[in-house]
Amino acid sequence: MKIERFEENPLITPTDVMPLHEGYEVIGAFNGGVAEYNDEVILLLRVAERPISEDPSIIKAPVYNTLTKTMDIISFDINDHAYDFEDPRMIRKKDKLDSFVYLTSLSYIRIARSKDGHHFTIDDEAFLYPFNNYQTYGIEDARCTKIEDNYYINFSSVSPVGVCDSLVMTKDFKTYEDLGNIFAPENKDVLIFPEKINGNYYALHRPSLKSIGNYDIWIASSPDLQSWGNHQHLLGIREQSWENGRIGGGLVPIKTAQGWLVIYHGATPEHRYCMGAALLDLADPTIVLKRSKKPIMEPDALYEKNGFFGDVVFGCGGIVEGDKLTMYYGVADTSMAGCTLSIKEILRQLDEE
Amino acid sequence: MKIERFEENPLITPTDVMPLHEGYEVIGAFNGGVAEYNDEVILLLRVAERPISEDPSIIKAPVYNTLTKTMDIISFDINDHAYDFEDPRMIRKKDKLDSFVYLTSLSYIRIARSKDGHHFTIDDEAFLYPFNNYQTYGIEDARCTKIEDNYYINFSSVSPVGVCDSLVMTKDFKTYEDLGNIFAPENKDVLIFPEKINGNYYALHRPSLKSIGNYDIWIASSPDLQSWGNHQHLLGIREQSWENGRIGGGLVPIKTAQGWLVIYHGATPEHRYCMGAALLDLADPTIVLKRSKKPIMEPDALYEKNGFFGDVVFGCGGIVEGDKLTMYYGVADTSMAGCTLSIKEILRQLDEE
Repeated sequence: MKIERFEENPLITPTDVMPLHEGYEVIGAFNGGVAEYNDEVILLLRVAERPISEDPSIIKAPVYNTLTKTMDIISFDINDHAYDFEDPRMIRKKDKLDSFVYLTSLSYIRIARSKDGHHFTIDDEAFLYPFNNYQTYGIEDARCTKIEDNYYINFSSVSPVGVCDSLVMTKDFKTYEDLGNIFAPENKDVLIFPEKINGNYYALHRPSLKSIGNYDIWIASSPDLQSWGNHQHLLGIREQSWENGRIGGGLVPIKTAQGWLVIYHGATPEHRYCMGAALLDLADPTIVLKRSKKPIMEPDALYEKNGFFGDVVFGCGGIVEGDKLTMYYGVADTSMAGCTLSIKEILRQLDEE
Repeated sequence: MKIERFEENPLITPTDVMPLHEGYEVIGAFNGGVAEYNDEVILLLRVAERPISEDPSIIKAPVYNTLTKTMDIISFDINDHAYDFEDPRMIRKKDKLDSFVYLTSLSYIRIARSKDGHHFTIDDEAFLYPFNNYQTYGIEDARCTKIEDNYYINFSSVSPVGVCDSLVMTKDFKTYEDLGNIFAPENKDVLIFPEKINGNYYALHRPSLKSIGNYDIWIASSPDLQSWGNHQHLLGIREQSWENGRIGGGLVPIKTAQGWLVIYHGATPEHRYCMGAALLDLADPTIVLKRSKKPIMEPDALYEKNGFFGDVVFGCGGIVEGDKLTMYYGVADTSMAGCTLSIKEILRQLDEE
C-alpha cells in the first residue's frame, strides 16, 4: 500500500494549542473527525488538557462540575498503593486494572480550519465542551457525517456512569442541536453512514463487553438517526494478527462502486494501533464482502511511534476526491497527521486476499 | 410490607418440566415473564436444560448449533487448571473471573398456562427456542408488555459475541414476529412501558459496563419499539445497602395515579437478590420521584433461599387487579413462585422514606 504522508506532518501538535484552562497544559490535539464546510477543511480536534502538577509524586484528575461550570481537581499520591498509575491516560484501582476510576486529562472538541488541507489555524474557543452529566470526564473522538446540508457529529461522552456515544447536529460549526445519547454505554467508535440505505440510516458501533464477547464492530439501523436498533455483529477481532486486541470504526464509510469501504482501526492487546479495511454490500451493509488480512497502514513515522501513548495511527475522517483519499489521523494519542491513499489500491488489496 | 406468598409455592419446579433434549435434565424453570391472554395467566418460563454428566469430574457445556439445529456439547475436566467451575452456572477462565466462556445449561422460553393463576400446566414444546447466532448459548429472562392487542416479548440473547436484548411480537403465543436485537450488548433486564408517553415508547434497560460505571438502570425512548435512543441514567446502585452490587428492571412498570411504579431487583456482590421499588414521573419517566431505601421483598421462604443458585427472588412480571399486585417471581434460579402485594402499601413505603 502506497501511503503519502504529508511533508508537514505532524500537522497539529499540542504546542499549537493554547489551553482553555488556567494551570493546565495541552497534552493532546488528536483524533479529529473531518468535515468539508464552505471552502475549508475542518478538523474536530480532540484537545486533552491536564492540570499542571509541580510535584511529580502527585497525579491530578480533572472533573468537570456541571453545577459550578468549572473544573474540580482530584489529587492522588503516586505512592498510594490502592491505585495504579502505569497507564498515563488514567487512574485505576490496583485490584481492577481493566477499568478506570479517573482520567488524567479532560478532552473536549475544538475546531482547526484550513484552506489547503495542510496548514491549520485553531479556534480560540471550544466547539463541543462538556454540557451535561454524561461528559464530566470529557468529550472524545468526534466523527462527522454530512447528510444533505446537516453535519451530524457523534462522540464519546465519558463520566462515572459510563462511556456513551452522543450526537449533535450543526449547520454552521458555531451552534449545534443536542440529539442525546444515541448508543447506551459502553460504546465507542460510532460511524454514521452518509445516506439512507433502503429507507434506513446505518451506523457502525463498537460495544465494550464485560461478561462475554470481544471488542468487535457491530452495525445498527435507525429511522431518524437518534434511535438505533437491529443490532448485528459485523466484524470480529482476529486472533494472532495485528488486530487481536480490539477493532473499531475509523472513517465514515465511503461509497464505492464495489461496496461501502470501511476503514477501521485494529489494535493488539499491547495497544499498537493500525488501520484496516473491509467492504460491505452496497444494498445491505450488514453483509461483509471482503476484509483485508494485512493492515493498510501501520505506525511507522517517528511522530506515530513516539508520544503520550505511542505506536498509534487512529484515522477519524477523510476527504475523497476521485480516487484520492486524504485521511486525517491521530498519532500517538498526541497530534494530528495527514496522508493520501488510493481507493483503488485499497480495493485491490482487499481483492488479493 | 405485607407479602402473601401463595400456599402452593413453589408453583413450578424443574421436576414439573420434561426436558426437550435427550440426555438432558431440567435444572431450572424460573424467571418467567407474565401475560394475561384470553382467560389464562401465561408464564413465559425460562427453562434451563443441562446435559447429564455421569462422571462428576466432567463438566459439560451445551451450545446450540444453528447449522445442524442440534446441540453441541463441550466437555471440561474439572481438574483443568485453566478454568474455574465454582459458579455452577458458568465456566470461566481462571485469569478472567469476571467473564465467562461457556454456560453449563442452555435456556429457552416455554409457556406455562393457568386458569386460576395458581395451578399451571406446561406446554410440551418450546415457545422461543434459539433461532439465530445471537442465541447459541440460549434465551433468558423474557418479559412481556401488552400494547393494544400485541404482546411484545423481550429477552436476553446469549452467545459468544455478547449478551443482547431481543424483541419478538406475538398475538397468539403460538407464532411470533422477530423484531431483532433492540439493545446492543451488553444489556439485560429491558422492560418496555405499556403505552406511549408524550408520543414515544419508553424502556428501562441495564447495561453491563467494562471500563467505568456500575450495574445501574437506564431509560431510553423509541418511536417504533425497535430503535432506541435518548439513553439516560435513571437509578444507580447504592453503596452499603441490599442493592450495592447490581440492580435491574423486574416487572413492566405499573401506571398509578402517583406515577409509574417500577419494581426492580437489587443484589449484593454476593448475589443475594431482593426486590425494590421506585416511582417515576407519569409525564416524563426519566424523572425519579421516589425510591425505597428498604427492599419491598427479600428471600425468606426455604424455596427462595435454597436451590441451584440460592437467596434469589427475581420478579419478572405481575398482574394488577385494583390494589392487588400478583407478582410471579423466580426463586433461587430454580423455580417459580407467586405472591400478592398491595400497591398502596408499596407506595406508602416509598412515602415514608
